[in-house]
Amino acid sequence: MTFFDKLNTSIKRNNSLLCVGLDTDLTKIPQHLLKEKNPIVAFNKAIIDTTADLVCAYKPNIAFYEAMGERGMMHLQKTIEYIQTTYPGIPVICDSKRADIGSTSDQYAKAVFDYLKADAITIYPYLGIDSSEPFLKYKDKGIIFLCRTSNPSASEFQDLLIDGKSLYIKVAEKVVEWDSTYHNCLMVVGATWPKQMKEIREIAPDMIFLVPGIGSQGGDLKGTLQAGLRPDKSGLIINAGRTIIYANSSKNFAEKARTETLRLRDEINTYR
Amino acid sequence: MTFFDKLNTSIKRNNSLLCVGLDTDLTKIPQHLLKEKNPIVAFNKAIIDTTADLVCAYKPNIAFYEAMGERGMMHLQKTIEYIQTTYPGIPVICDSKRADIGSTSDQYAKAVFDYLKADAITIYPYLGIDSSEPFLKYKDKGIIFLCRTSNPSASEFQDLLIDGKSLYIKVAEKVVEWDSTYHNCLMVVGATWPKQMKEIREIAPDMIFLVPGIGSQGGDLKGTLQAGLRPDKSGLIINAGRTIIYANSSKNFAEKARTETLRLRDEINTYR
Repeated sequence: MTFFDKLNTSIKRNNSLLCVGLDTDLTKIPQHLLKEKNPIVAFNKAIIDTTADLVCAYKPNIAFYEAMGERGMMHLQKTIEYIQTTYPGIPVICDSKRADIGSTSDQYAKAVFDYLKADAITIYPYLGIDSSEPFLKYKDKGIIFLCRTSNPSASEFQDLLIDGKSLYIKVAEKVVEWDSTYHNCLMVVGATWPKQMKEIREIAPDMIFLVPGIGSQGGDLKGTLQAGLRPDKSGLIINAGRTIIYANSSKNFAEKARTETLRLRDEINTYR
Repeated sequence: MTFFDKLNTSIKRNNSLLCVGLDTDLTKIPQHLLKEKNPIVAFNKAIIDTTADLVCAYKPNIAFYEAMGERGMMHLQKTIEYIQTTYPGIPVICDSKRADIGSTSDQYAKAVFDYLKADAITIYPYLGIDSSEPFLKYKDKGIIFLCRTSNPSASEFQDLLIDGKSLYIKVAEKVVEWDSTYHNCLMVVGATWPKQMKEIREIAPDMIFLVPGIGSQGGDLKGTLQAGLRPDKSGLIINAGRTIIYANSSKNFAEKARTETLRLRDEINTYR
């Protein structure tokens, strides 16, 4: 199944645009898990088991795993494997923000698609098409370009004006052009900027956007959905990480994560 | 010792601006090494042992290691450890082209500086200062921003004009501004673009540039050096990877790599 097949199916089956960010940090998980042989994977499995009927996707950010060194990469691989064997209908987005010259992008694509076996990846557009092609040529995978990010200083470069158009608009136009050839592009559009979301939706009326910035980053959920939803009430993957996975640090952490996932999924649906 | 202390010392001691790119790929190393317990580390050690008196730095690109999964990360960690224990004067640049929102950049910095213990890192500027600070706050490390890259489609975004200035010029100006606070910034400026190198040198007269694109990518060595050298005949780290490490695939590969390193170091020096 392609990334889009999996995603569209899980959006419908779980009636959900919510993606849970598995940004798992050993210093933040419930202390009782530290007794486990593999606390990171145990934590992730517990979160996945209690939320798998409520999400459209999972999005581990690879940075949190790399910070643990070689064991971290193994934890990430095992987490993705667990999702794909236990809940094969749910796609996994590896949030890795990669891209390099062509021959090096080849290696990054190999790491994320062949070794980790993720269904989608986030990448930087800054090096242009020859840097992106090694990812795009994986036709069954979703290639998610950073367009307008959710962080406070995103405007520093992304809002620079080129012939009256912001850089992120130029990026969006280019990604739409690439998508007309490859048909597997998405974009990152932060929830902290509903105005920009609206502009990008006009440029890419059919494309699916990955939307970080809800929750800890203070994004505007209602404004984001109003600006970004397609007429079919879909087209957005709304990510929440810390507010869900660290909702509680007691022995009931996974149940509490489910409660928060359910609440947020339903809140999103009230605006659809 | 800080990154700059190490770098300046090794530039002088080895009379070299040449950096060897350790982009090691199991499918390209000499076949006889496959018998070794750890062929990747054995290959890297052999290259390092025959070139350590000729280089100013080593630059492994993390993509090649990630593509091997968790073992790859261990190979990279062991390679860096070998350089730092056997040749402690030579800095290691981890070419990883990272950056994310602040709390995630924290994790990437942890991976590269605390786990891998590299002396410098390459990062993307696209998310602005709050994404860069988690790296910049490592005062003893070199933080190398992608400015004008060496690949053919670099111009696609990097040459877009903002008030008559290319985006890469805006990036260079911003990095110079950040450097006035942090004092640990460098930039990537590809050897394939001597004209752009000259412009960026005018904006950043004192900064050190990491220069990929010599060798396999066909960069113009003489033009690059004429455009980029500072008046002190330094200020550039010229990287070569594949043309050195894969100079030969016989049992004498490491000696041949030395010959090519020596030739290129001396060729660079004829233009200084």
